[in-house]
Amino acid sequence: MDLKEYLGNRSALVDQTLEKYLPAGDRMPQSLHQSMRYSVFAGGKRLRPILMIAACEAVGGSAQDVLHAACALEMIHTYSLVHDDLPAMDDDDFRRGRPTNHKVYGEATAILAGDALLTEAFRLLADAKANSGVSAEKALRVIEILARYAGSQGMVGGQVVDMESEGKEIDFPTLEYIHTHKTGALILASVQVGALLGGGDEEQFAALTRFGGAAGLAFQIADDILDVVGEQADLGKDVGSDQERGKATYPALLGVSDARIRAGELCVIAVEALAPLGDKAATLQSLARYIIDRSS
Amino acid sequence: MDLKEYLGNRSALVDQTLEKYLPAGDRMPQSLHQSMRYSVFAGGKRLRPILMIAACEAVGGSAQDVLHAACALEMIHTYSLVHDDLPAMDDDDFRRGRPTNHKVYGEATAILAGDALLTEAFRLLADAKANSGVSAEKALRVIEILARYAGSQGMVGGQVVDMESEGKEIDFPTLEYIHTHKTGALILASVQVGALLGGGDEEQFAALTRFGGAAGLAFQIADDILDVVGEQADLGKDVGSDQERGKATYPALLGVSDARIRAGELCVIAVEALAPLGDKAATLQSLARYIIDRSS
Repeated sequence: MDLKEYLGNRSALVDQTLEKYLPAGDRMPQSLHQSMRYSVFAGGKRLRPILMIAACEAVGGSAQDVLHAACALEMIHTYSLVHDDLPAMDDDDFRRGRPTNHKVYGEATAILAGDALLTEAFRLLADAKANSGVSAEKALRVIEILARYAGSQGMVGGQVVDMESEGKEIDFPTLEYIHTHKTGALILASVQVGALLGGGDEEQFAALTRFGGAAGLAFQIADDILDVVGEQADLGKDVGSDQERGKATYPALLGVSDARIRAGELCVIAVEALAPLGDKAATLQSLARYIIDRSS
Repeated sequence: MDLKEYLGNRSALVDQTLEKYLPAGDRMPQSLHQSMRYSVFAGGKRLRPILMIAACEAVGGSAQDVLHAACALEMIHTYSLVHDDLPAMDDDDFRRGRPTNHKVYGEATAILAGDALLTEAFRLLADAKANSGVSAEKALRVIEILARYAGSQGMVGGQVVDMESEGKEIDFPTLEYIHTHKTGALILASVQVGALLGGGDEEQFAALTRFGGAAGLAFQIADDILDVVGEQADLGKDVGSDQERGKATYPALLGVSDARIRAGELCVIAVEALAPLGDKAATLQSLARYIIDRSS
């Protein structure tokens, strides 16, 4: 399996499906739907949806089984970026080299576009046609998982603590809280939903949960290292912006070298967690390594 | 049936259940959970949850059948108010006589508290324990209805058009779009969900849909009239604030007298729609009249 080809193929599939599920840009209110689409189709790598698809395939399912949930997850991820970029939050003018949503559509529409993306994600997850072949019990469980990991005790909780920690000395448990919640939670959710909708059993679900926990944390550490050592082109935002803001990061607390070691350890834990899945987890293994290698 | 007693009793029930379902204020991140609770327990009349309960009772169900969904609906309504009050939106410092969420917790936390309330609403709607006795198929349909009416083609869509129409001359169809979406959508959703979870049949669902459409529009017209003629104490915000902002309203387009006539007509339509439900709809009839009478 060629990972680059896999990433290209699966992200194209996610893009096509997002195109189908998002309300058209000429539907009223047009500014809102265009604003939603602007940020969803802003060149994201679709990492979370691809992890969901790979987890689904690792338990014997196919991409088709999770595509609607993968799109819902990407809508949730996108809404979080739109709100995160707002002047009252990170106040970013650019993301992935393009002006941020509120710079193009104005703050009010950006807030509402984020709200609408989050709401549309849950509408899609409950949509009878999108769920064809999925039992209602399972569809409900998927909604519960995504809402739990996206909410006040998941991603949003991590955002709040991250924001409150800016410019402060924080301890290791707080840093770990921020990382496991702000970024880790949705990554964990992605592989859990993949396991569920792919028809995985409890052992496989548990294995992917361990994988997702370690991979999610490794991903955030790698991202923080990139912010220190990366090229602006790789990052799509200014290098060193975390440090400038006094953001709590692994490199800031441990130094780049020890942060790299920690990311490597987590990668090993993630890969080892996949053992019960056998050969079918080869893609997930490659994905875990790819996540870390970006930063080394 | 004494309507005042009914409103007091049912809103107390909703408050108790919200207390149970909302994450505690001492749970991490505390500022986020306190901010969510601040706005949920800000003295709202719980009109939407009470309409849901009354619709449920009108088809032979009991309040217990819909309490979790009623709380989820109130969380969605509350999130919309928190975001609506933000400086980038209506920029309100007070709501119901208390400082708005962002004045107390700051803009960033207010944005995230709104996000978390919306997410928590869907978590609750998918929660297995909260749904005990409800089939998974029905629970999914409830989620689909609430997400549809709250999203880009429902409430959020109405907000966007409302915002874009400020200070502009708008035509009647645009005004009706704003009202049926911004306020009407969640009121319609409340009675549809009540009908579903109360075990209503298709005829009853259709009757309550007609009722909700008319009552929702009447409610917004009454609100707009109150903004012109009401006492500040009744309104919880400044009288005349709509006019000051150049908001699109029925009184602005038709005059107060014709707007009252229109609200009265809609009330008759709403009450007549309840005919198939017989005596059990007496409370809903009173609620519809109560909605209009506030403004006359």
